[in-house]
Amino acid sequence: MTTMRAVQVVDYHQNLQLTELPVPEITGPFDVIVRIGGAGVCRTDLHILEGQWSEKSGVALPYTIGHENAGWVDAIGTAVTNVQVGDKVIVHPLITCGLCRACRAGDDVHCENSQFPGIDTHGGYAEYLKTSARSVVRISDSLEPADVAALADAGLTAYHAAAKAARTLRPADQCVVIGAGGLGHIGIQVLTALTASTLIVVDRNPAALELATSLGADHTVVASADGSHVDRVLELTGGQGARAVIDFVGEGGSTAEGIRMLRRAGDFYVVGYGENIDVPTIDIISTEINLIGNLVGSYTDLTELMELAARGLVTLHTVTYALDDFQSAIDDLDAGRVRGRAILIP
Amino acid sequence: MTTMRAVQVVDYHQNLQLTELPVPEITGPFDVIVRIGGAGVCRTDLHILEGQWSEKSGVALPYTIGHENAGWVDAIGTAVTNVQVGDKVIVHPLITCGLCRACRAGDDVHCENSQFPGIDTHGGYAEYLKTSARSVVRISDSLEPADVAALADAGLTAYHAAAKAARTLRPADQCVVIGAGGLGHIGIQVLTALTASTLIVVDRNPAALELATSLGADHTVVASADGSHVDRVLELTGGQGARAVIDFVGEGGSTAEGIRMLRRAGDFYVVGYGENIDVPTIDIISTEINLIGNLVGSYTDLTELMELAARGLVTLHTVTYALDDFQSAIDDLDAGRVRGRAILIP
Amino acid sequence: MTTMRAVQVVDYHQNLQLTELPVPEITGPFDVIVRIGGAGVCRTDLHILEGQWSEKSGVALPYTIGHENAGWVDAIGTAVTNVQVGDKVIVHPLITCGLCRACRAGDDVHCENSQFPGIDTHGGYAEYLKTSARSVVRISDSLEPADVAALADAGLTAYHAAAKAARTLRPADQCVVIGAGGLGHIGIQVLTALTASTLIVVDRNPAALELATSLGADHTVVASADGSHVDRVLELTGGQGARAVIDFVGEGGSTAEGIRMLRRAGDFYVVGYGENIDVPTIDIISTEINLIGNLVGSYTDLTELMELAARGLVTLHTVTYALDDFQSAIDDLDAGRVRGRAILIP
Amino acid sequence: MTTMRAVQVVDYHQNLQLTELPVPEITGPFDVIVRIGGAGVCRTDLHILEGQWSEKSGVALPYTIGHENAGWVDAIGTAVTNVQVGDKVIVHPLITCGLCRACRAGDDVHCENSQFPGIDTHGGYAEYLKTSARSVVRISDSLEPADVAALADAGLTAYHAAAKAARTLRPADQCVVIGAGGLGHIGIQVLTALTASTLIVVDRNPAALELATSLGADHTVVASADGSHVDRVLELTGGQGARAVIDFVGEGGSTAEGIRMLRRAGDFYVVGYGENIDVPTIDIISTEINLIGNLVGSYTDLTELMELAARGLVTLHTVTYALDDFQSAIDDLDAGRVRGRAILIP
Repeated sequence: MTTMRAVQVVDYHQNLQLTELPVPEITGPFDVIVRIGGAGVCRTDLHILEGQWSEKSGVALPYTIGHENAGWVDAIGTAVTNVQVGDKVIVHPLITCGLCRACRAGDDVHCENSQFPGIDTHGGYAEYLKTSARSVVRISDSLEPADVAALADAGLTAYHAAAKAARTLRPADQCVVIGAGGLGHIGIQVLTALTASTLIVVDRNPAALELATSLGADHTVVASADGSHVDRVLELTGGQGARAVIDFVGEGGSTAEGIRMLRRAGDFYVVGYGENIDVPTIDIISTEINLIGNLVGSYTDLTELMELAARGLVTLHTVTYALDDFQSAIDDLDAGRVRGRAILIP
Repeated sequence: MTTMRAVQVVDYHQNLQLTELPVPEITGPFDVIVRIGGAGVCRTDLHILEGQWSEKSGVALPYTIGHENAGWVDAIGTAVTNVQVGDKVIVHPLITCGLCRACRAGDDVHCENSQFPGIDTHGGYAEYLKTSARSVVRISDSLEPADVAALADAGLTAYHAAAKAARTLRPADQCVVIGAGGLGHIGIQVLTALTASTLIVVDRNPAALELATSLGADHTVVASADGSHVDRVLELTGGQGARAVIDFVGEGGSTAEGIRMLRRAGDFYVVGYGENIDVPTIDIISTEINLIGNLVGSYTDLTELMELAARGLVTLHTVTYALDDFQSAIDDLDAGRVRGRAILIP
Repeated sequence: MTTMRAVQVVDYHQNLQLTELPVPEITGPFDVIVRIGGAGVCRTDLHILEGQWSEKSGVALPYTIGHENAGWVDAIGTAVTNVQVGDKVIVHPLITCGLCRACRAGDDVHCENSQFPGIDTHGGYAEYLKTSARSVVRISDSLEPADVAALADAGLTAYHAAAKAARTLRPADQCVVIGAGGLGHIGIQVLTALTASTLIVVDRNPAALELATSLGADHTVVASADGSHVDRVLELTGGQGARAVIDFVGEGGSTAEGIRMLRRAGDFYVVGYGENIDVPTIDIISTEINLIGNLVGSYTDLTELMELAARGLVTLHTVTYALDDFQSAIDDLDAGRVRGRAILIP
Repeated sequence: MTTMRAVQVVDYHQNLQLTELPVPEITGPFDVIVRIGGAGVCRTDLHILEGQWSEKSGVALPYTIGHENAGWVDAIGTAVTNVQVGDKVIVHPLITCGLCRACRAGDDVHCENSQFPGIDTHGGYAEYLKTSARSVVRISDSLEPADVAALADAGLTAYHAAAKAARTLRPADQCVVIGAGGLGHIGIQVLTALTASTLIVVDRNPAALELATSLGADHTVVASADGSHVDRVLELTGGQGARAVIDFVGEGGSTAEGIRMLRRAGDFYVVGYGENIDVPTIDIISTEINLIGNLVGSYTDLTELMELAARGLVTLHTVTYALDDFQSAIDDLDAGRVRGRAILIP
């Protein structure tokens, strides 16, 4: 039995630890072993260490963390037909059953029997990851695993919400994006690729707004404590409000502000989370607005996002760290020193 | 100039008054004068008298009340081609412009220049009503104005929400209706006509649930103060919750309870109003649910509802009063003595 | 090794033969062995014997025929989680891969790697059938396999087309069904369950039209050689034509006639086949009509159809034969002596 | 009464004639008089002169030709609220009633009472045109009437089909455009603006393909008499065919070839016309393809197209002629000497 390096959660409120583990092996017909080319370091990983997910995930410690993974197929089970050993792949964050109602309808994110490597089972801060044929998407020769790994979860969530909104947006419509950070800047690229609507981006950070403009925003608005950015958005939309508001923030008052930015019969997409939405029912019915939940995208969404990445329509700024240097990546993320996304490379 | 009887709001917190007014006349090319056959007495009319709408509507007193109207076309403007004098019609509650973005898209309820007879201009507690070609729908020979008048607003709202839900409901889905009263019992009939989904109806009133069963509900659940009806709905849906919950109540905790009844990726339709929806964003995104606003239906919705009425698939229980006896109707409604809907007949 | 009886194609243009074969065994993780409770005898089976499918299917002779199957789960592979031994099931006609683009989008009928038992591999004129976890749908306790088997293919095709049309049909619309035979009479039941549109049924056979009326048709029209039934349909639709025409015939001129029955922007659903559609492009664009192809339904469609069957909203007339008496069933079908569907029972 | 110059059809198979006519006046409440800034010269105008439309339109001679118009609002009726005198507008080719079922649903192209200036009543080869409030769309300050006039009909048709296709196209899909001429090159720009799908353009003319590449086509394929371009498209789509094929040609075999380019469950959009579509029903059902008709776009489509034009995402190449020089424009078009679109300027 060969071994590999892996970075594990050994206890909550403790540092992660590098350890030596057996390389995972094929045991089921649809198993796929991926040799990791890059693993995204995500804010959720910090929350895991703080114990915020311990109850929800029920995971037994120690386990290997890391839920944004890409690499090369190293081994496949007997029933795997969609990838071959050597294929370059990105890994969908969920392992899904393929048999439940949701899976059969193509809505695999709502699988009734899913696993979430890096959250409730072993993830990708390691040399190898065990996943399923249902979770691997081949990527273009022009892409490298380390460049796209962070699209596997954060990027996929942004794609899912933005592509859903794009299906209703017409050229004469306006779309507001609240938050031009990690998810938001992907969402802006997706909206630019998929719509010809006017794109208004709101953020507190002028640097984020500059980035937004360079990615295709038509207007940018600095969010301020006095809420005047809401008025500015209404002004930019002829006093009527926007057809769609995609909120990648979900805290600090962004939901109430975002809902005020909607036109009649408009759609508010909840992506970021933290605060409560607290809105009078009479406001919902008198303007007939919709509040639309958004989770991570489906497997099909991921194939679509990888197409955008292959065409250069969605790109990520990344900073790479050696796997052994995981603690620097974690520390830098925690201290706000990472521009773009941190990626571990085994 | 001929005159007519009309019932007017002369001041807030005062009784309505019967008065003699000139019969309205055609002044614009799309005007339609309707000889009233029946006018619904609605709880909103009580709220108007309490002054709740004074600021919102900005209406000048005195004015003629009544926003649920049906009758016969008495006169038409020069440009009216869709009805002829003598036609039996129901009157859509809004007069819309036909030229704004919303009107051009068929979404006339969101007209940017609409009027609302009975609320912000003269309504139908009278012998004659002035409305527009864009507001009159011819009804089947088999229907009488007094029988359908109350479908013009309350019924149309219930139809709009139920028909919207029906477009996503499949035979293996469950749909919960909260509230089997005035709007709810129309919604149940619409869902029964348009879907083969399992229909679960929740109400505090056992008599309302008996009516629901007779109208097509598959299961009924008594709402109780301890919230155990939520558990009962979850039990009836195999622990997963329902694909759609249509809330005709909107107060007393129905929104929080209704949201708990949803399955993953389910839709909560807000129809009734009163309380706030207050829900953590993490609950919205982790189950990817949608909260969907519903206002009164469009003109096209009203033509569809009249088709259901003509086929006997939607019926209303009504109690008729002579127009001169308006005070009895108001008093009976206020005292909870009206079974079904009160209708004034000139 | 236990054996079973099975009816096989031994050569084209020869009678089927009853033979003794080993009971199929689980060899893969998703295999399911079904003990047959009923197998539908379909006109396609006659066409197979005539050699019409030999080239298309490429099946090696001898093989067991029968593609409309239902029964009880007898054995399952190690990875099967959606059914248990003893479950009563209907069998979707295709075995699909679950991994290709189409399968991942819930559109499994267009699977790039599918098998079709009874057509290109062993089918269900036998005591046992080998299929896949992805092909079995549990049915209600209230249903018997022999009663629903014929819904597995013919019924599923009718459901798929009718349910697709139902998603666009509104109460004020008209829908024409051409052909009230095997597929058509299922389609009529589905439309009655899922829409409140006016249903006009056209058939050459007055007995079929009587059945149509009993199943919910609002109007019936006898198809005649002179094409006057087209005029009658136009008359019934106020001279405008119908929103949807579902053609279960596809030969003898039904397509040209059906297209003439459409209103502007109407939809013509092709289900039956045989003749060519031959229509000027100027007719398609000047009225902006759509011609919509329909194949058998998906797995999800089959779960929905079984829900309608469980509620008694879709029923089949069947005539049962012992499996050993297969030749009588074939002969009766060929001679037009079967009313409804012939079912073989092992 | 003031007079104006106008170019009229005086008889079929005769040259158009310049004449002096009274300037049209407001007679109805929704009338709008437009001072023409540019009128497109369209191949349909040649067909009118050949008498091809005489029976269909039933127009009485002489009448003013020209159905692609833009200019400035010169006078408005008493009920017009959506434009003011002086506004720069493009003119939708149809005058619609606003009251019929289709108009109320936002589908005004299928209006049951429409007029078509330039075809069945006086058009825009003139100094002034009488149209309706329902037909005028304000255009951006950045656009000139003469630059966009030809988008009013040809461009609007291309937009309508391409935007309809765009609503189903996903990033990993392929879309084929057959014909990169007058309509096709607009369609290519629309698809580029609204989708991130792979765009394959087929044309016989290498120069048209060069233009297509410059407008955003990912692949171009020269159409050849031997049909090998079909194979090339299949090769470019991995042997599976394209999700959508938009046929702007409709003759010379393009429909049969285009249908062969479709993947399973693909959509063939009929835009160009001339030949018959002649396809076996078994081919339609076994691959479950759809044939989708396309007429000119709605008023709402025109507002969307004008938004794309304002943003520079759709541009036309035009050649201008003085109104008095109409015969040169007609002659040049007939002789194939016009690159892009000929525009008459009064």
